[in-house]
Amino acid sequence: MPSRQPIHYGDAPPQVRAVFDDIKRSRQIQDVNNFWKYLAHDPPTLKRTWESIKEVMAPGALDAVTKEMIYLAVSVTNGCGYCIASHGAAARKAGMTEQMFGELMAVVGMANETNRLANGYRVPIDPQFDK
Amino acid sequence: MPSRQPIHYGDAPPQVRAVFDDIKRSRQIQDVNNFWKYLAHDPPTLKRTWESIKEVMAPGALDAVTKEMIYLAVSVTNGCGYCIASHGAAARKAGMTEQMFGELMAVVGMANETNRLANGYRVPIDPQFDK
Amino acid sequence: MPSRQPIHYGDAPPQVRAVFDDIKRSRQIQDVNNFWKYLAHDPPTLKRTWESIKEVMAPGALDAVTKEMIYLAVSVTNGCGYCIASHGAAARKAGMTEQMFGELMAVVGMANETNRLANGYRVPIDPQFDK
Amino acid sequence: MPSRQPIHYGDAPPQVRAVFDDIKRSRQIQDVNNFWKYLAHDPPTLKRTWESIKEVMAPGALDAVTKEMIYLAVSVTNGCGYCIASHGAAARKAGMTEQMFGELMAVVGMANETNRLANGYRVPIDPQFDK
Amino acid sequence: MPSRQPIHYGDAPPQVRAVFDDIKRSRQIQDVNNFWKYLAHDPPTLKRTWESIKEVMAPGALDAVTKEMIYLAVSVTNGCGYCIASHGAAARKAGMTEQMFGELMAVVGMANETNRLANGYRVPIDPQFDK
Amino acid sequence: MPSRQPIHYGDAPPQVRAVFDDIKRSRQIQDVNNFWKYLAHDPPTLKRTWESIKEVMAPGALDAVTKEMIYLAVSVTNGCGYCIASHGAAARKAGMTEQMFGELMAVVGMANETNRLANGYRVPIDPQFDK
Repeated sequence: MPSRQPIHYGDAPPQVRAVFDDIKRSRQIQDVNNFWKYLAHDPPTLKRTWESIKEVMAPGALDAVTKEMIYLAVSVTNGCGYCIASHGAAARKAGMTEQMFGELMAVVGMANETNRLANGYRVPIDPQFDK
Repeated sequence: MPSRQPIHYGDAPPQVRAVFDDIKRSRQIQDVNNFWKYLAHDPPTLKRTWESIKEVMAPGALDAVTKEMIYLAVSVTNGCGYCIASHGAAARKAGMTEQMFGELMAVVGMANETNRLANGYRVPIDPQFDK
Repeated sequence: MPSRQPIHYGDAPPQVRAVFDDIKRSRQIQDVNNFWKYLAHDPPTLKRTWESIKEVMAPGALDAVTKEMIYLAVSVTNGCGYCIASHGAAARKAGMTEQMFGELMAVVGMANETNRLANGYRVPIDPQFDK
Repeated sequence: MPSRQPIHYGDAPPQVRAVFDDIKRSRQIQDVNNFWKYLAHDPPTLKRTWESIKEVMAPGALDAVTKEMIYLAVSVTNGCGYCIASHGAAARKAGMTEQMFGELMAVVGMANETNRLANGYRVPIDPQFDK
Repeated sequence: MPSRQPIHYGDAPPQVRAVFDDIKRSRQIQDVNNFWKYLAHDPPTLKRTWESIKEVMAPGALDAVTKEMIYLAVSVTNGCGYCIASHGAAARKAGMTEQMFGELMAVVGMANETNRLANGYRVPIDPQFDK
Repeated sequence: MPSRQPIHYGDAPPQVRAVFDDIKRSRQIQDVNNFWKYLAHDPPTLKRTWESIKEVMAPGALDAVTKEMIYLAVSVTNGCGYCIASHGAAARKAGMTEQMFGELMAVVGMANETNRLANGYRVPIDPQFDK
């Protein structure tokens, strides 16, 4: 099957179904989103990616909404359309309000601007930041 | 003066000193860091950038440490060495612990990975993310 | 003619036709793909890009499929939708199987992740890598 | 301990030593490189990253040198200095000759160029690439 | 109102209308483009971004068309589809001919290529460039 | 010879000397800069890159300083340290004043910011920009 089609639960081999089942159980959703249906073309990557995501995105020293906002900030910086849509939705589900989103975007915009100002002016690192 | 040297307070014209004074007062620091001393080569950009940063980074719906962590996540994604050093320091000053930093980096790493998985598998946006 | 339309063979000036003819002959295809029909708006860039591609992509110390996979890895990293589609097709034509594509994507994902881990932890280069 | 210092084997907690031991055994080396000594600040990320790398970089449908070259191509595209140095060394160790490196760089350069030509000319995807 | 819909003039609060009015007056246009209608979800960012753009894009030591071409070169490098379309139009309106666009794209392509050649060959900065 | 050392004129094979001679003659300089001395490890890439640069950077519809500024804007966006240093010098040699540099940097910064605002707000392209 060419990788340009999603693999649906009904057509998936057992090791893919096992991952899909764990995603659905963990997130309490009816069906997995397209990202997983495409990754299913490579079962080891599907499994490794899901297990990593599950571990990394679990609340810890940072709570769920902060983690989702960081994910979204990276996705916006990289211009990944799918990721902006899916993690925008995930962040909202985790509690990001529209005002929080507005402030996140303002920070992401400024960081992308000042990253280039620092590059272009070739600013050397201050000793106090280098300890 | 070529832009490859910092402009120190003592050598700065009045409109640059006014910005430096405001930075020092707002952040309660003795001296501004190199970023501002290099931007001082272009006083309008110095002023505009500082005023934007001051507005954007003020606590609002997101608190200071969350904003600094988002700034850091963008800087790490872009690979801006100066910005990683300075905003790493700023985030720690605002309350980011080493454990929070570790979790932030784990999320930034995963997001950069899955952004490319979504690109390469050409995953279409699910209808529920597109509302 | 605005650059938002392709230039087809029938409407192309002689120096564009000459490049199109060489692409068709080299690749043994009936028609060139859209990339070349848009570059045709700038005949010197069309000619220079085609001659560079022809030289660079010819099998040498690396074979054709390896070169196409490297091209695809860069395009996925940059998020260039057109390039992912066209070089994904070219890599498959050159012999990339779906399993090879899966492994390529796994490597591209990991590299994008660990590039940011190295950035964020500010890892210094080991002396043995710097010889 | 601040994250700006490496964690050496002698100072590492047991779960870090276990990962270091596995890296040394797998790669048959005397000591791990700096990347792992810095990741050791976050033991779960150290463990997850190493296990992912070990799985992803194992020879499969692609051999070791091809995987290292793809890793290097991504690192060069992203401009990650540490990763270019370490994966350049790893690729050479896995069999990349200087001629292969030269051809890899030529492809990486062309891909980064044509990715932007496709962006700027806003080239639509040909139907035959979209199946 | 979710951020996935534009805010039109008729539905906009006074502080948004004030910015829209200033954009329309400054650019002598009937309606603002989508960028501003979406930013309107966050009035402080709308206002700050517009005022910054108005200041930065005003002719000075660089004329309007040069500034728009630099904007376009950055947008093409980043692969921002919206920005390529809108600043491509703005650059043409400011006087960029198709021949100028062709040369701009050729430079953008070469720069993206040679940036990676410099990265991959790890070229040290010549002393004469570092003064 | 490993690619981590420059190849100097005295040690270079004839086809490398021929390129070095042409660079020195065209630019009326005593010695080529490091970029070329490292590319010399791969003579075909050295030759192809120099001939492309010579063609692309020649004054045409855009003059030399505008082309160098576009090159610099791309290099700053990509964070290529070598390229920022060398093309910053080249742009100044071609006539870029410090005021022009300041305005260039302001535009580059704004473009990098608004590129992400457009990404994050998922702004659809206006019909008038899509003709």
